[in-house]
Amino acid sequence: MKVTIWNEFRHEKENPKVEEIYPKGIHDTLSQFLVEAGLDTQTATLDEPEHGLTDEVLEETDVLVWWGHKAHHEVEDTIAEKVKVRVLEGMGLVVLHSGHFSKVFKKLMGTTCDLKWREADDKERLWVVDPSHPITAGIGEYVELEKEEMYGEHFDIPVPDELIFVSWFEGGEVFRSGATFKRGQGKIFYFRPGHETYPTYHNNEIQRIITNGVKWAASSKSIKPTYGNKQPLEKIAEKG
Amino acid sequence: MKVTIWNEFRHEKENPKVEEIYPKGIHDTLSQFLVEAGLDTQTATLDEPEHGLTDEVLEETDVLVWWGHKAHHEVEDTIAEKVKVRVLEGMGLVVLHSGHFSKVFKKLMGTTCDLKWREADDKERLWVVDPSHPITAGIGEYVELEKEEMYGEHFDIPVPDELIFVSWFEGGEVFRSGATFKRGQGKIFYFRPGHETYPTYHNNEIQRIITNGVKWAASSKSIKPTYGNKQPLEKIAEKG
Amino acid sequence: MKVTIWNEFRHEKENPKVEEIYPKGIHDTLSQFLVEAGLDTQTATLDEPEHGLTDEVLEETDVLVWWGHKAHHEVEDTIAEKVKVRVLEGMGLVVLHSGHFSKVFKKLMGTTCDLKWREADDKERLWVVDPSHPITAGIGEYVELEKEEMYGEHFDIPVPDELIFVSWFEGGEVFRSGATFKRGQGKIFYFRPGHETYPTYHNNEIQRIITNGVKWAASSKSIKPTYGNKQPLEKIAEKG
Amino acid sequence: MKVTIWNEFRHEKENPKVEEIYPKGIHDTLSQFLVEAGLDTQTATLDEPEHGLTDEVLEETDVLVWWGHKAHHEVEDTIAEKVKVRVLEGMGLVVLHSGHFSKVFKKLMGTTCDLKWREADDKERLWVVDPSHPITAGIGEYVELEKEEMYGEHFDIPVPDELIFVSWFEGGEVFRSGATFKRGQGKIFYFRPGHETYPTYHNNEIQRIITNGVKWAASSKSIKPTYGNKQPLEKIAEKG
Repeated sequence: MKVTIWNEFRHEKENPKVEEIYPKGIHDTLSQFLVEAGLDTQTATLDEPEHGLTDEVLEETDVLVWWGHKAHHEVEDTIAEKVKVRVLEGMGLVVLHSGHFSKVFKKLMGTTCDLKWREADDKERLWVVDPSHPITAGIGEYVELEKEEMYGEHFDIPVPDELIFVSWFEGGEVFRSGATFKRGQGKIFYFRPGHETYPTYHNNEIQRIITNGVKWAASSKSIKPTYGNKQPLEKIAEKG
Repeated sequence: MKVTIWNEFRHEKENPKVEEIYPKGIHDTLSQFLVEAGLDTQTATLDEPEHGLTDEVLEETDVLVWWGHKAHHEVEDTIAEKVKVRVLEGMGLVVLHSGHFSKVFKKLMGTTCDLKWREADDKERLWVVDPSHPITAGIGEYVELEKEEMYGEHFDIPVPDELIFVSWFEGGEVFRSGATFKRGQGKIFYFRPGHETYPTYHNNEIQRIITNGVKWAASSKSIKPTYGNKQPLEKIAEKG
Repeated sequence: MKVTIWNEFRHEKENPKVEEIYPKGIHDTLSQFLVEAGLDTQTATLDEPEHGLTDEVLEETDVLVWWGHKAHHEVEDTIAEKVKVRVLEGMGLVVLHSGHFSKVFKKLMGTTCDLKWREADDKERLWVVDPSHPITAGIGEYVELEKEEMYGEHFDIPVPDELIFVSWFEGGEVFRSGATFKRGQGKIFYFRPGHETYPTYHNNEIQRIITNGVKWAASSKSIKPTYGNKQPLEKIAEKG
Repeated sequence: MKVTIWNEFRHEKENPKVEEIYPKGIHDTLSQFLVEAGLDTQTATLDEPEHGLTDEVLEETDVLVWWGHKAHHEVEDTIAEKVKVRVLEGMGLVVLHSGHFSKVFKKLMGTTCDLKWREADDKERLWVVDPSHPITAGIGEYVELEKEEMYGEHFDIPVPDELIFVSWFEGGEVFRSGATFKRGQGKIFYFRPGHETYPTYHNNEIQRIITNGVKWAASSKSIKPTYGNKQPLEKIAEKG
């Protein structure tokens, strides 16, 4: 199972505060704990040719993790479309935090994916509402983050297939923070936390959830459905 | 409540068989029974300027009914995008039959919306699987159509919010024929029957279902959510 | 459309604080605003013969509203079963607050319906997560209650068909506060607020939501499905 | 992972036709292919003390498979209740065919679980509608059974969390044949085929689906939620 971690990788180079938390980039931190969990990873970033997402890379990827924020518009439409097509063909997708506004996620959801937000050191508490879901394995009843960006409802997404986490924010809001969607043959996990100015991806429980999510999103390698004009399987009566 | 019925209106002008069934166009037949049900309708067709879907028309439309088939690609991207945006803002949408492949529906679903099909005079029987849904009001346990085009699973759509009808086809297939989706503030009803060479839209039960669907899709005029940067509603503690 | 409001009606007689808020009982307050909204109501309480829920009353009831708390165990099993059967036959059901632990709701859900709780004057803010739902008509983005009992996740219910409200609590919890379920032909709306020691049912927005919920839960009078042994609709081939 | 297969085991002893197909009982056939798939199984039957479902057996069972038909009423209420409680605590449950009318399944669903049926050698074709679900791994687009009992809609169950298979029947009906439900901590898979007079459980594809279902239903061993009275996690302001 091959996991490709895509990161915009701009904040880390432009903001010393972010660089301090993620010196080699958010993708590197994500990769480290996924590798420790036994997964085979590679990384790709915005400023590489084709954003690092060549046909070969996409073809061999079982699950793609996506982190982007300030440069969603710099992702080329053709690449975003290719990623979407690969998801529909069965590649798993884990969309983190501000990836809610990525071209890929918006194309797959069909909605604006808009939300409320605030950068004010809110405490966040992610409550498990689907405790038998494999993505929650090894987690307690909630995960607490001392400081995070706030995301608040209404979150303009389709009704999720599964709602796993709901966040409480110190400033008074709630948010559907962990949700799954199937699109085509692909499984998608959206997970809210991870603003670049906080050390969220160094948190063990957050790491566990992302690892669980990556494993969950991997395809079960089902046979592909066929489409188009089909001969009947049963005799059709002649009609007047 | 204003209903706009959009029709491609090409088959009726090019195929005498279709013209015989729908002499003034499918949109005219749809309009007639919706008017009889007390609704205020107008029509729009592909070959009108802006496909008949000007900003003014879209603005005043509460529910848009969509029938298209052979010329989906001729619908301008900008118009398709405008329709999508209006749905997300709260306009209802009833997508009929081959409209599953329209630009508007595919943009809203995020998937290929592909399916199996066959033009072979299959008998179709639409079974009600959600008998308390208002869209089924006045309908029996199933609706039978002597001859229709077959649409078969897998239908590549997101899991519907509500599954209302499942079709049985004489040639051996099944299909999720009636399904609802919420996207943004808009309510969407996809309803399968209505191939142009059959008199399906003259069937009283089909008319009843479409009428119910139009009424269901109308907005409940809720207050619009707001998005973006927000002040806290509660005091946030200073942190180190 | 006939609405029957069922209330345990014990706290009001035993606790002066509750009596002050609801001098004629919670059922009376609920009835008053539903009548003002144009609905035809009647009430029933635990200590009446058959808890006020005779066969005649149940038969004529389109939507039953249920408030109970300290005496769930005093509701006779046969009555609870009758109410459940009527819901499955198409009677709407609006379950309020501590009604989550009523025999009727637990039978219909099949789960423990357990939750976390605290009586500590938490502020509650109910956020709308399904803004196009008719139950939210006329409501803003959230409803704020200065003081309420806290209910917290995990709420042990089946995944709701529709999730409409999520509550934020001052003490740090979240809760799925408004949710709908279809069971049989019946539509069920669970709505969290309404602890007896707070004046919650005098709040205009709460009244609006309950009124919307009652209207939503009313049956669309669909034809009843039939069950049991059936003749084939198509010819079945003889097999070896 | 321990799988317990429960079988009523009456038809096999009373009907020579059934005995010929399942000489050691349906449970034995189910056990054989589950063992071949690497699972650790044991069996339990109606006529054993406590129906073979002692506290010890239930405690050690990760997934329970249930086949019953003519003697649902002979299952003691206390045993049915214990099984239900264990499911809510996290034991997986795979309900086969006429198990839709078992006490355990009806308690968990909260509905009548009624349906249409016919014993007339209908051909059945189970179409996959959720092709990325792990329960469909290794299966083609459909599974065809030459002869089976017909089950037809409306199937009076809650809306499933996931709909995986829809059956086509020769006599003209459709049925939601494979569906999943979460209840409490437990995962439930209902799978339609398997009338006792047909060799359905000897079919390789049916065996594959049941094996997949058993694996899917096993708990991911999440931490159990806690319930009841809770101290606040945040300071609650004093109010007037």
